[in-house]
Amino acid sequence: MIISTANQKVKRILKLQKKAKARNEEHVFLVEGIRLTREAPKERLLELYISETFLQKHPGLDDRLLRRAEVVSDEVFAHMSDTKTPQGILAVIRREDARLESLFEKRDGTEPFLIVLDHLQDPGNLGTILRTAEGAGATGVILTKDCADLYQPKTIRSTMGAIYRMPAVIVEDLKATLGKMKECGIHTYAAHLDDSRFYDEEDYTKATAFLIGNEGNGLPQEICTEAEHRIKIPMHGQVESLNAAMAAGILMYEVCRQRRR
Amino acid sequence: MIISTANQKVKRILKLQKKAKARNEEHVFLVEGIRLTREAPKERLLELYISETFLQKHPGLDDRLLRRAEVVSDEVFAHMSDTKTPQGILAVIRREDARLESLFEKRDGTEPFLIVLDHLQDPGNLGTILRTAEGAGATGVILTKDCADLYQPKTIRSTMGAIYRMPAVIVEDLKATLGKMKECGIHTYAAHLDDSRFYDEEDYTKATAFLIGNEGNGLPQEICTEAEHRIKIPMHGQVESLNAAMAAGILMYEVCRQRRR
Repeated sequence: MIISTANQKVKRILKLQKKAKARNEEHVFLVEGIRLTREAPKERLLELYISETFLQKHPGLDDRLLRRAEVVSDEVFAHMSDTKTPQGILAVIRREDARLESLFEKRDGTEPFLIVLDHLQDPGNLGTILRTAEGAGATGVILTKDCADLYQPKTIRSTMGAIYRMPAVIVEDLKATLGKMKECGIHTYAAHLDDSRFYDEEDYTKATAFLIGNEGNGLPQEICTEAEHRIKIPMHGQVESLNAAMAAGILMYEVCRQRRR
Repeated sequence: MIISTANQKVKRILKLQKKAKARNEEHVFLVEGIRLTREAPKERLLELYISETFLQKHPGLDDRLLRRAEVVSDEVFAHMSDTKTPQGILAVIRREDARLESLFEKRDGTEPFLIVLDHLQDPGNLGTILRTAEGAGATGVILTKDCADLYQPKTIRSTMGAIYRMPAVIVEDLKATLGKMKECGIHTYAAHLDDSRFYDEEDYTKATAFLIGNEGNGLPQEICTEAEHRIKIPMHGQVESLNAAMAAGILMYEVCRQRRR
């Protein structure tokens, strides 16, 4: 059992919790909690740590999981954890890369249905968008590299497991990506606030991609111009805009609605 | 200018930031930031505090607002503020009560369109629901008293101003409230995960109320049973549920969509 915070493994986990660079170099991310650990594809679960108390409380824990677990004292676990009240189970997960071009093809017979995020800043919003994207049947997510870090603990928690299953690609040059999408016959819709058609007046049964911008500033003009269509969500009262994840969710579930008919 | 954190006014603001009881007794809430302060109905803005730096940076600030402001040193303002990087403007706002029965009537010619929240725990979700409710054209929000505090700083921030405009009523007995709604001809729809019809197969042009439950546990069975209908949002992949605010938003924008036709 690991009982010291000076232990090299503990120090490394802490680094993986806090530093995007360390996570990127090792090509991994961390998950905490029994649910997220159980949902992890077995071949991608590289290391597992559990606290002493967790071990006592879960004697029925899947043996295959347990055999791979390193037990650490509760104090050390609290030190390693990103949460205030840790569940006592933490895993290192290997990332799985999606190829950008694969997102432009049908997935399991489904026309491409993509969410493109430009400069989205809030990790909670980012995670919620992945979760909702999976629920709505989206086939992939594209992020600019100035978005919140997809692999930081708060984003991972908010995905509720969608991080394992929703293909996501981080791109350097959004304009070039939009060009490629056009070539592949994907119809792009920029979420915009004015001079646009209502979002529910378009046909999303075809290959579709929504462009969602930054929480405070929306999409830059040059990206809006590049998109094939500009759409807006109608707004009553004095509301100027919706939360970015909410806007994305409403658009995605309109696709889901249309594709069920 | 107030320069001491021992000042009675400063102590009172701090209490209003931190204690629901103090806010309830004075029947007020606090807002921070220029946007939320500007949007406040003038007759409900009871007190205004600005930091020294804020005063220097905003010489063009509306005189009527300025004349009412009490200036405090930056250090004291940081102490009074609920945020890490305070904008330097904070106001005490009088609450405006809505009557429960008034929510069951048409509002500006619109059929009732209500959101009923049972035991919703996250203040960010609660605020986002109010914001989205205003955007979707909802006519009111009903909360059980075990929901997150509607008037805490984090909820207020997430409403983005909807707190001033969306009639909200906190109820003691949800079952009794559902009974009254039935009497008033309001159709109630419990967001549920199984054995339900899809949410977009119902007619929401009639008087409509959605019941949304707790983030982790959803609605209690006895409340689901009491509702006229149970509806579900379809879910692809391995997603078990959506974020509660997201689910509420998707339902509300389906009403908005139907009522625009």
